[in-house]
Amino acid sequence: MNIDNIVSPTLITDKKTCLNNIRFMADKAKKHNLIFRPHFKTHQSRIIGKWFKQYGVNKITVSSLRMAEYFANDDWKDITVAFPVNIREIETINSLAEEIQLNLTVENVESIEFLKNELKYKVGYFIKIDTGYGRTGVSFDIFLKIDKIQKSASESDKLNFNGFLSHSGNTYNTKNTDEIIDIHNDSLYKLSLLKKQYIEKFPDLVISTGDTPSCSLADNFNGTDEIRPGNFIFYDLMQYELGSCNFDQIATVMACPVVAKHSARKEIVIHGGGVHFSKEFIIIGNKNIYGKLVHLNNKGWEKTEQDHYLIKLSQEHGTLQISDELFNKINIGDLIGIIPTHSCLTANLMKEYLSTDDEIIDHL
Amino acid sequence: MNIDNIVSPTLITDKKTCLNNIRFMADKAKKHNLIFRPHFKTHQSRIIGKWFKQYGVNKITVSSLRMAEYFANDDWKDITVAFPVNIREIETINSLAEEIQLNLTVENVESIEFLKNELKYKVGYFIKIDTGYGRTGVSFDIFLKIDKIQKSASESDKLNFNGFLSHSGNTYNTKNTDEIIDIHNDSLYKLSLLKKQYIEKFPDLVISTGDTPSCSLADNFNGTDEIRPGNFIFYDLMQYELGSCNFDQIATVMACPVVAKHSARKEIVIHGGGVHFSKEFIIIGNKNIYGKLVHLNNKGWEKTEQDHYLIKLSQEHGTLQISDELFNKINIGDLIGIIPTHSCLTANLMKEYLSTDDEIIDHL
Repeated sequence: MNIDNIVSPTLITDKKTCLNNIRFMADKAKKHNLIFRPHFKTHQSRIIGKWFKQYGVNKITVSSLRMAEYFANDDWKDITVAFPVNIREIETINSLAEEIQLNLTVENVESIEFLKNELKYKVGYFIKIDTGYGRTGVSFDIFLKIDKIQKSASESDKLNFNGFLSHSGNTYNTKNTDEIIDIHNDSLYKLSLLKKQYIEKFPDLVISTGDTPSCSLADNFNGTDEIRPGNFIFYDLMQYELGSCNFDQIATVMACPVVAKHSARKEIVIHGGGVHFSKEFIIIGNKNIYGKLVHLNNKGWEKTEQDHYLIKLSQEHGTLQISDELFNKINIGDLIGIIPTHSCLTANLMKEYLSTDDEIIDHL
Repeated sequence: MNIDNIVSPTLITDKKTCLNNIRFMADKAKKHNLIFRPHFKTHQSRIIGKWFKQYGVNKITVSSLRMAEYFANDDWKDITVAFPVNIREIETINSLAEEIQLNLTVENVESIEFLKNELKYKVGYFIKIDTGYGRTGVSFDIFLKIDKIQKSASESDKLNFNGFLSHSGNTYNTKNTDEIIDIHNDSLYKLSLLKKQYIEKFPDLVISTGDTPSCSLADNFNGTDEIRPGNFIFYDLMQYELGSCNFDQIATVMACPVVAKHSARKEIVIHGGGVHFSKEFIIIGNKNIYGKLVHLNNKGWEKTEQDHYLIKLSQEHGTLQISDELFNKINIGDLIGIIPTHSCLTANLMKEYLSTDDEIIDHL
């Protein structure tokens, strides 16, 4: 990669780091005898998808039917859509179900009733379980609702019960890694109650779980059968601050040109705004932080001595407040690197990556 | 438009309302004898761009060279890039400057020095002025810096000084419409000092200003020569809450399928998340608000009796908290409408519009 050739905001990814991240997670799954079904919503890339194949991955997770189509058309044959089924998209469901092993996520009887009437091909379904995040899903202890869903589905030969699926997104609201482990263990315990309740009737049921913080840090997966982390392929500033990864595991950085300097307030303005990074932020020292500065070079990027953050974003502008020393070193027209706060949303906006090996990488 | 045909998140726009919004702003510009140079970063659409032509618009504003290329290729011949010039993109600058009247925005001598050496064709340039927003630009009272920029530029026959350009983005941080008018008038006063200082030397200089809140509400444009509002084509929830528009001026709404209901907390979950709306929020009653519910019909949308807001977003999920009464009326699989908090970022994510007349409308 020659950074002199980069003229506008460009999302760089380091393939070697991505491969290390995949190997790390694949090894962990193997060690704990878990199905590794990575979530592809982070990268949304067919090329990056193929990198997983050399680690034996053949089952994947996505978060929309559109994404499922994108990967089904690239020969992925077993796809779970980890999002409450949108029954309005029944045509897409049927066309996918004809071609691949499609696994839907269901959390109400209404959806099952609709699917029973409209499905033309067999699908698997997971019941979405809420173990405490509170976003969506059936609470882990409402067996009555779970029974109803299973009973209704059992009247159709098109609906095969796969098991229970949960996502502990509340690990993202933690203050330290102990809290992440606590949430993870609490979730495992709740899912174990479900397994106990239903394993006799459904001996093949799969307990599927796995946010990136838990999967990165935990070493106990008792009772779980499958993990679905996604963000770990790149990690990002949010994961770094949570403690889910170290600096060397971060695999994506935005390259941004410097367009203005304001010496009185030691701010530099970059081309790199909400349409590049998204407006997702984390709070560090009472400031909204959209990304963190790194030094770019032709091999990739390096940590700076001090921390410098992207503190303001508008549609195309980004503002960093930096030290006096660095301020004097950075010139108009320079290219700086920014670790994005949330790599999934950043990649979704950029729609393309440049690898450090100069490969242009697709994004849905 | 038949909403039964909408199966996944879809950004709907009402052409008639857009045309009314354009007429309103074009009339205002005419009344005050202002050049109307609308900002196309909001819609980023060639089709919507053409709607402006019937109101006599032939000069436009964009916020990136990429956008400038998109519209130059659709026969727009006079384009201002209202973003500090990114000198790394000199090739694009030269290829655009060969074809159209390209106006750059400059705020430092370094950029001018670079352009002097590298420009192959004539461009106009505005000096970006900060009248109090504090994002970027030369402070309105630092004549020394302005003089330096002008002096350096005057040594090149490729750089023609157009005038001063400012953006009062601080109108977005106001609590009532009086504050918007105060900021606008303060900005006019500061720009008038500049005009007074430089009009003798540059008798054709243009004072260019105009954020949507000011342009929507103000009736005093003394000293201004040009306005560049953009968001007014659609408006959005942010503008509505600021008081810049009324409900009937809002011209875009996202249609989202309902995928889950949680009766205990009276929440409904929609397919519609950060990848559709962006994570931009405003605060209403201590809550982060990403959008507001409306009822959809085949003609467009209608206000609800009570206010119901989109209060949580993850990548694909959106959560609304609604009244008991409405909760009972909304079913799994229904389609609801959401006025986005920030239409520019929402449109930028959706990359396409469906008009209420069933036209598919492009977006860069």
